[in-house]
Formats: sequence, structure tokens, C-alpha cells
Amino acid sequence: MNASKPHVIVVGCGFGGLEAVRALSKAEVEITLIDRTNHHLFQPLLYQVATAGLSAPAVSAPIRHTLRREMKRGNLTILQAEVTDIDAAMRRVTLDGRDKLAYDHLIVASGATHSYFGHDEWAAHAPGLKTLADAFSIRARVIGAFERAERTLDATAREAWMTFVVIGAGPTGVEMAGTMTEIAQHTLPMEFRRIDSRRTRVVLLEGSERVLGSFVPQLSERAREQLLKLGVDVRTGSKVTGIDAEGVTYETREGETVQAHRLPSRTVIWAAGVAGSALGRSLAATAGATLDRAGRVVVQPDLSLPGHPEISVIGDLAAALSHGRGEPKPVPGVSPGAKQMGRSVAANLRRRLHGEPTQAFRYIDYGSLATVGRKAAVVDLTVPAIGAIRFWGLFAWLFWLFAHIYFLIGFRNRLTVMIDWAWAYWTYERNARVVAEPPSAAVMPAPALAPPTLPRVEPQAEDAESISTPS
Amino acid sequence: MNASKPHVIVVGCGFGGLEAVRALSKAEVEITLIDRTNHHLFQPLLYQVATAGLSAPAVSAPIRHTLRREMKRGNLTILQAEVTDIDAAMRRVTLDGRDKLAYDHLIVASGATHSYFGHDEWAAHAPGLKTLADAFSIRARVIGAFERAERTLDATAREAWMTFVVIGAGPTGVEMAGTMTEIAQHTLPMEFRRIDSRRTRVVLLEGSERVLGSFVPQLSERAREQLLKLGVDVRTGSKVTGIDAEGVTYETREGETVQAHRLPSRTVIWAAGVAGSALGRSLAATAGATLDRAGRVVVQPDLSLPGHPEISVIGDLAAALSHGRGEPKPVPGVSPGAKQMGRSVAANLRRRLHGEPTQAFRYIDYGSLATVGRKAAVVDLTVPAIGAIRFWGLFAWLFWLFAHIYFLIGFRNRLTVMIDWAWAYWTYERNARVVAEPPSAAVMPAPALAPPTLPRVEPQAEDAESISTPS
Repeated sequence: MNASKPHVIVVGCGFGGLEAVRALSKAEVEITLIDRTNHHLFQPLLYQVATAGLSAPAVSAPIRHTLRREMKRGNLTILQAEVTDIDAAMRRVTLDGRDKLAYDHLIVASGATHSYFGHDEWAAHAPGLKTLADAFSIRARVIGAFERAERTLDATAREAWMTFVVIGAGPTGVEMAGTMTEIAQHTLPMEFRRIDSRRTRVVLLEGSERVLGSFVPQLSERAREQLLKLGVDVRTGSKVTGIDAEGVTYETREGETVQAHRLPSRTVIWAAGVAGSALGRSLAATAGATLDRAGRVVVQPDLSLPGHPEISVIGDLAAALSHGRGEPKPVPGVSPGAKQMGRSVAANLRRRLHGEPTQAFRYIDYGSLATVGRKAAVVDLTVPAIGAIRFWGLFAWLFWLFAHIYFLIGFRNRLTVMIDWAWAYWTYERNARVVAEPPSAAVMPAPALAPPTLPRVEPQAEDAESISTPS
Repeated sequence: MNASKPHVIVVGCGFGGLEAVRALSKAEVEITLIDRTNHHLFQPLLYQVATAGLSAPAVSAPIRHTLRREMKRGNLTILQAEVTDIDAAMRRVTLDGRDKLAYDHLIVASGATHSYFGHDEWAAHAPGLKTLADAFSIRARVIGAFERAERTLDATAREAWMTFVVIGAGPTGVEMAGTMTEIAQHTLPMEFRRIDSRRTRVVLLEGSERVLGSFVPQLSERAREQLLKLGVDVRTGSKVTGIDAEGVTYETREGETVQAHRLPSRTVIWAAGVAGSALGRSLAATAGATLDRAGRVVVQPDLSLPGHPEISVIGDLAAALSHGRGEPKPVPGVSPGAKQMGRSVAANLRRRLHGEPTQAFRYIDYGSLATVGRKAAVVDLTVPAIGAIRFWGLFAWLFWLFAHIYFLIGFRNRLTVMIDWAWAYWTYERNARVVAEPPSAAVMPAPALAPPTLPRVEPQAEDAESISTPS
């Protein structure tokens, strides 16, 4: 340890952590970046891995490779470990429950996990989509569901295998529902013998009255139209009350009446709620941090903790406010927010090192994009001096495509994604459909088949019967 | 079931099964192809996935997509399931231990698994490389080993993490050892702060006296030279006697003396022995089949079972002989062998349907290739009317590259591999290094760190010490 340089620990190499490290690289500090995995993930495109449209290397990059220039400056150490505890009094973090690492400054950017609104038992039946492992798991389930449907002889079971439910109509849910329909309608139809994949049902359940609730109502309506046109069964005002291995129960309200519904499905995907990572609780315990309802850490205007100016929290873990003109506004949990927070805390840290006061964080909202499916997206841009520009449809989709490619990390990733998408657009093929292992019994419970009743077959019989009857 | 068409079941969609299905597609038969996974794997390039040089979609293709033209003919059903039992008397196969499917003709192409020479307990510590799941597992271990080395403070433990052992110097072992050295020497050096990846040791253990023992001695020597030049520690005449979580024990012989050796390593890869899949035992039990020492099924000259002309066994599961000029010769367990066997049994099945006698299988050996590393390979071609052409080095490596691209299934895969390889050659980058999840405790036992002794740190101390000391 260079005793004259302060030691900054950055926890998490998502958008926030990565920007913070890059912005601090030239400062007179010693940096240790700690991430649970070996890669930086471009989360906005994660749903494409889950729906087999892109492979993992297209949307992720090894951290060490991404930060190779910063490594050359000689003040950066990268460790793959999980920070399991933060001791704000001792100014130490614990790695993997074992090693301890001391810091002078701490930037916590460990992100969010899923919230099942108090029903953690739903997680086993309705996986969420936050990490590459999640994406692989969902992809295996979706592909496996079609394979199971092909093998199942029981019509009711087959229908459950061909019914996919996405819970939560935010951008992730909408993107998943749209692409799953595209797979069923365009990619798979000629590939199965017994099932007609075009008869697949994709149901999008949303508790509120709108899809893409964080967008303006006009764009919510456009997105709903696009989803319906693609063939997605959109059910707003539908609040999930139960999820099990066989399907989902939800309620709807008509005035005073509450109606319960049951939707049999073998593949349920959760895109409805997020919560701050477990480190939030550690900060609450040792640094007196306050958590909001979603488990996010309440921070000062300069993103530091009250009473602990040496600790900052950014990204999805932070319940941050943007201080610009007018009332402070909550910062949305999107990638530009995390990136801007990363740069802001780095700048404030440099100010602190020079004895200058820190500045409040101001989020500059350039707009929002969400895609619904092929040639369908909604775009809401904030252009200085002009205001809001909103558009949808084909042009919005092209804009969405190029924006996502532009913001991807690394030339190699951009090239891969452009080729993969060009191919997929031209051919409707899904490039990343290969599933390494058939889903285990824990992931995909055995289909409820009728017990096989095999007529006795004499070895010399001319017409050997079989259970399977190709149509 | 179309009662007038015989029902052919093909088990396994490797090289043999795929060729058989394609060759039978135009015949007057009903075909059911059953594979445990949803993809056809180009096994010769699997080691590239294990060493993070290629992503899974580059070396595999979804079966349904691969056979889409055959699907259009209307006589092919594809099922994803594991054939757990073959009942030759009843002419039925069992799927996943549950469903039964009757056949008129059966082609068993389920391939090989690993043999640990009676020491199945070694499998937990020394994974083999036969499936995509194997490749992901090995890749995670190799990448994880460098990450562990970076975190470990104990010098002995660090050396064990930076020692990689490959057991078995056949083409797979040689390819793995060569590429792992390339990663350590060229891809990683600037990316770590504490470790110098160039100090990695890659040890190739081989029981016999030669590497690439199935090649002619001249090429074995060239391969050994190339490996040594790359920096691989080649140890022939070394017979493994034990493998555990901490390393490998092996013996060498000097005349009468047997010497025992211990090699500490946290990453051991098995490339030494294969055995026929479990279906061989099923055939032995119900069809009176004989198995050889490696668990492969002994077949007639036309690849059918004695007493069961309706059952054929091909590919790595078969102990087949080639009947050409001169003495019958064993067919090597390589992809061209499996493909030729697939075509042969399909042709024989059509002959049988027409009441004609079957023909003995004749393997046409076009030659062998193996790559050692960048710009290093050995090629042994058999050219009609000329004889053997053997070469090595850069030209052999280019030949190897183009041959493998040529034989890949699918234009998309070829394009991907060419781009990935061109990029890797130019930049030494490994495109597929992203590991979704940190290896679990079951895969990567916790490193044996010295217990941390943290000096008491006063919160206001100016020189906060930490365990980690960047060099």
C-alpha cells in the first residue's frame, strides 16, 4: 500500500462502478475494484441473451480487459470476490466472509436484486433477469418448454408448456414478451413436428393500468398497441397473488369486485420488482444508513452517507435525488443514471482530496427508449432548447438499435452485436439457442404425462405400435 | 405412425447420428431422432470453448435448425430426451426412464464418455471435455484459477493456482495444453496486478512415451518440439496414480525403479481415456452384445449387432473394423469415422428394405490433423495414388484452420469462427472469457489462505493498513 495515496474501494463493476473507476484512474489514489464476477454486463441487452438472440460475449466484457488502459497506470487492483460485509466504523470490507480489506474511501455500486414483494418463495418458479446466469437459466427454460411440448402427449400439459407468462410490464418485461412472441411466431414454426409453435401464448401481466408506466401515457399506448399487434396477450390491472410450478394466480378489480384468475403455465418470468442488494443492510447496520421500501440506501445530495462522507452509494442501490432546477427529483434506476452518479462521486472525491466542498448530484435525463419487438419501439428524448421528442415504430426501433450498439463497451462487442442482429433480422434465426445441458429436474419439473399405456407388442408383429404418433 | 413405413430410431445427434438421419431422409422410412441436448456439437473445436477462444454458438448448432430441410420432407420427428434403456427383445427404447418408443430399426450413435481407468472418484477433481457443459465448467475453472491466484497471499497456494495439469497427450490434451499456455503468455500478462501470468506452468502428463501417440513418430516429435517451444512442460512416461483437490500424483520408471511424484495443482483436466456410453451396457443386457475393454460395442462388418440385424451401432460407441484391402483395421474414434459409419448404416438399411444383402463398412482415412498452438500444428494426409503427405508448423496450422472451418455445420458458424479467430490472432484476445457465475464451492474449493491477521486499525489512523499490498 502506498501510504501517501488514499485507498479507494469500489464495490461492483456495473455501469456506476466502471465509470467511477475510470474517472478516478488519473487521480492520486490507489483503487481496488471488487466484483463478484469477472465481467461487466451491458444489462439493457441481457434480455436478448435470455431469448437466445445474442450470446453472452456480445453483451458482456471481461473486466480486466475493459480496464486494461487503467491497469497500465499502476494504481488499480481488480479482485474477483463478493463483498459480504461493510464495517463503517473500522473502515473495512469483508470479502467472501473471510478476508478483510481496509479503505479510506468507499464507493458502493453493487446494484439491485429482485424483489418478490415479500414472497421470496416465488423466486424458484419465476426467475428474474439481472445476471448472465439468470439469462442462461431463462433461456434454457424457454427452449426446454418447446421441447417438452413436443414430447408431451397430454393436451392440457402441452398447453401449459406453450403458455409463457411475463410478470411486470416495465421495459424488461415488455422486451421479453415481445421477443418471445417473435420466437414462437417466426423462428420456430417449421422446426417442430407435433406442435405448432404459432399457437404459443405469451401473457404479459401488469399490476398497474399501463405498460411502460414510467413513460408518458401516449407512448404507453403505442407500446401496448405494438405488443397486441405482435400477438402478446397484455393484461394490465392484474395483480399477481401466487406463483407455483404449475402456473400463476392473479386478481383483477371491477369497481368493488375482486376477481381471482388462474393461468396454467410452466414458464413464468419475473420482471416486476427490484430491491437494493444485501450490502444496503450492512450499511444500515454499521453506518446508520436509512433504507427505503425497496431496500435502497438513502443518500445525501452529493451521494454520500449522512455522517460518513467517506462512503458513497451509487446506481441501483442508491435512493438518490437529482438537484437541478426546481424540486429535487428521484433518479431513475437506469444505466445513464448510474454512469452519471459514478462520474459525480469520482469528481466529489477529488474535490475532497483537495479540501474543496462537494457538489450535489444533478441527473441529466436524455430520454428513454424501450423496444417491443421487430421494428417496434418507443423513444422519448429530451433535447435541450427544444423539449421532448417522441416517436415510435420503425424509426424508433432503428434509433434504439443504434443507441444500444453505440453504448456497448468495446468495439468487438459492437461488431458482434451488429452481425448477430443483421443475421437475425434477415433470417429470423436465433443465434444463441444452444443450451449446454438439458434443464435439470430442479429447474424443469418433469411434465405431468399420462402414464404410458403400451399395448403388448410381439417381437414379430408387423405393425409395431408406439406411444408417439406423428401427425 | 404410418403403418406402411418402417420406424427408424436414431439415438444421438453427433457426427454419426446426424449423417445417418440426413442419408435416410429421402428413404421410405419414418425417422425419430433422439438427443439429450438440443444441439449438434462440433467436438473438434470444443477445446476452444474450454479455453475461452470461441463461444458456444460458434461450435454448435440447434438440431432443429440444422435439420430444417429434412423436417420439410415430413418423415422426421426430433425429440429431446435421454434414451435410458434399449429393450432389444421388445424392440423398444425408454426415454428418460419413463416413456417407451417402439422401433423397427435402431441406430445407436450415443458416443463416448470419459473413462478414469476404474478411478471414477477422480472425475470430481479432473473434469473431462466431451460436452458444452464440460467446456463451460473447465473454462470457469481456468479463468477462476487466475482470479484466485490474484487474491491469494500465500505463495505456495498461489503457485498451485497457477499450475495447470492436462492428463493425456492425445489431440485434445495437446490442444488444451497449447492454448492454455497461449492464454497465460499472451492474453493475460497486463491484466493482473499481483501475479505475473507468464509464470504459469502448464504440465502435460502422458503415460506412454510419445505425445500424439496415434500419429507417426516423426509428427509426434514435431508436436513435442512445438509444445516445448510454447512453454508447455511435457512429461511423457508419467502414469497418473492419484488425483485429489490439491493436485496429482504420478509415477515414472527408470529401468527397474519406479519413482512417485507429487504435483500440486488446483486445475487438472482429464483428456486421457474414453469409454462407450451407458447404452452399451443396455445392449449387452438385452441384445447379447459384447463390449470391449473400453465399453464399446463389438459390431459385425456391416456395423449391426450379431443376432440383431435391425440394430446398428456407430461412432465412438462402436468397436468397429474397417474392411478394405488387407487385414481388417480398427476404425479410429474420430469424426470422419463416425460420419462414414452413419452413411454406411443408412445405405445398408435401404438395402435391407429392398431385400438386398448389406455391405461391410470400409473406412477411408483421409489423414489426421492436430494443432498445438498458434502457428503450430501437425498434418498427416493420405492422398490417393501419392501416399502420405506430412507437414507441420505454420502451413499445417493454416491447413488445420481452414479444414475445421470447412467442416463446421452452417454458414453462420463458419462466419462467426472466422471472425473470432481473425480477431484473436490479431489481438491475442480471448473472446469468450466471460464466466456467468463465479465457480461454486463445489467446483472450486476455497483457497487455503493463511488466516488473516489484521492489525488493529484505529479509525483515525493516518496509515490504515490492509491485508492487500499492491506491488
